[in-house]
Amino acid sequence: MKYCSDCAHPVSVQIPKDDTRERYVCDQCGTIHYQNPKVVVGAIPLWDEGKEAQVLLCRRAIEPRYGYWTLPAGFMENNETTAQAAERETMEEAGARVEMQALFSLLNVAHVHQVHLFYRARLLDIDYAAGTESLEVKLFTESEIPWDELAFPTVSHTLKFFFADLAASRTGGKFGFHSMDITKSHRSHQ
Amino acid sequence: MKYCSDCAHPVSVQIPKDDTRERYVCDQCGTIHYQNPKVVVGAIPLWDEGKEAQVLLCRRAIEPRYGYWTLPAGFMENNETTAQAAERETMEEAGARVEMQALFSLLNVAHVHQVHLFYRARLLDIDYAAGTESLEVKLFTESEIPWDELAFPTVSHTLKFFFADLAASRTGGKFGFHSMDITKSHRSHQ
Repeated sequence: MKYCSDCAHPVSVQIPKDDTRERYVCDQCGTIHYQNPKVVVGAIPLWDEGKEAQVLLCRRAIEPRYGYWTLPAGFMENNETTAQAAERETMEEAGARVEMQALFSLLNVAHVHQVHLFYRARLLDIDYAAGTESLEVKLFTESEIPWDELAFPTVSHTLKFFFADLAASRTGGKFGFHSMDITKSHRSHQ
Repeated sequence: MKYCSDCAHPVSVQIPKDDTRERYVCDQCGTIHYQNPKVVVGAIPLWDEGKEAQVLLCRRAIEPRYGYWTLPAGFMENNETTAQAAERETMEEAGARVEMQALFSLLNVAHVHQVHLFYRARLLDIDYAAGTESLEVKLFTESEIPWDELAFPTVSHTLKFFFADLAASRTGGKFGFHSMDITKSHRSHQ
């Protein structure tokens, strides 16, 4: 940020009165331009009609992580709820219709100023199709998941939690809610 | 937003190529200025040492809702996790030391572009003190909660969920995770 979005005067970095953090402050009109983390919301679309459960993944057609696989997910927009954002991203990236279920995971990625949320979702049909941000969209059983080609640690951790809970649910267990902090060192493991 | 924060040229509202929503776009340098929901994170600080459990509330010394009671909460900052944000706000607004516990509630407030998260927390001592954004800070049993003087519907719903789960926990139940969408009509009931 170089200029005030309210009056076009150059901004400077300073700690405002009664604050403890450096902010972009306009030296002319005094506006403080706060910057806050963004919410990324996605779905875990499950197709559980056959003999083995499958999850829908998208291969990214955009940077970062072009060519790697991800759960359908993206930045939450104003005027929508977290579940609506997950459903919208699933339609935009995977062309897939889902019935939204419970929130399944919350992953903090503090070093990139993001909070990732993933909802469980039931695929309503398998007439999915890659959106403009996906190269291809495909169903994977647990053993078929391309673990070494997943785009983000929040996706791989969510999928691990999910298949563990799915296995537990076959013997009377329940799906839980999972929370985790991703650090830079986690990231380098991918 | 009137001017580009990158180059100070006036921005216009338009739908960028490959997008479906109106954005602020710079007509000179082409930068798209996305605007996204903010995350508000708070704690439910519990003091459970006496004969009846008490929750710590703050009376707001700032607008909006000056003079009304709230759980300690505020905007999440860059470079922190959601739990760290809740712990920080509890110290800043209530001068209270807490041991952070599980995420308890997620409330969407789509019409003001916010997602509110509340964590359960155990008060470590009762040497709390009002911060600059609070007029006073006080412990309340369930029957003492000033329900008609709570600042925000996300706070009142979270407290209702909390005391219900607390009662259930006395007879072997567990604290759950609660999700809810707040609409404008909910808001007008306060």
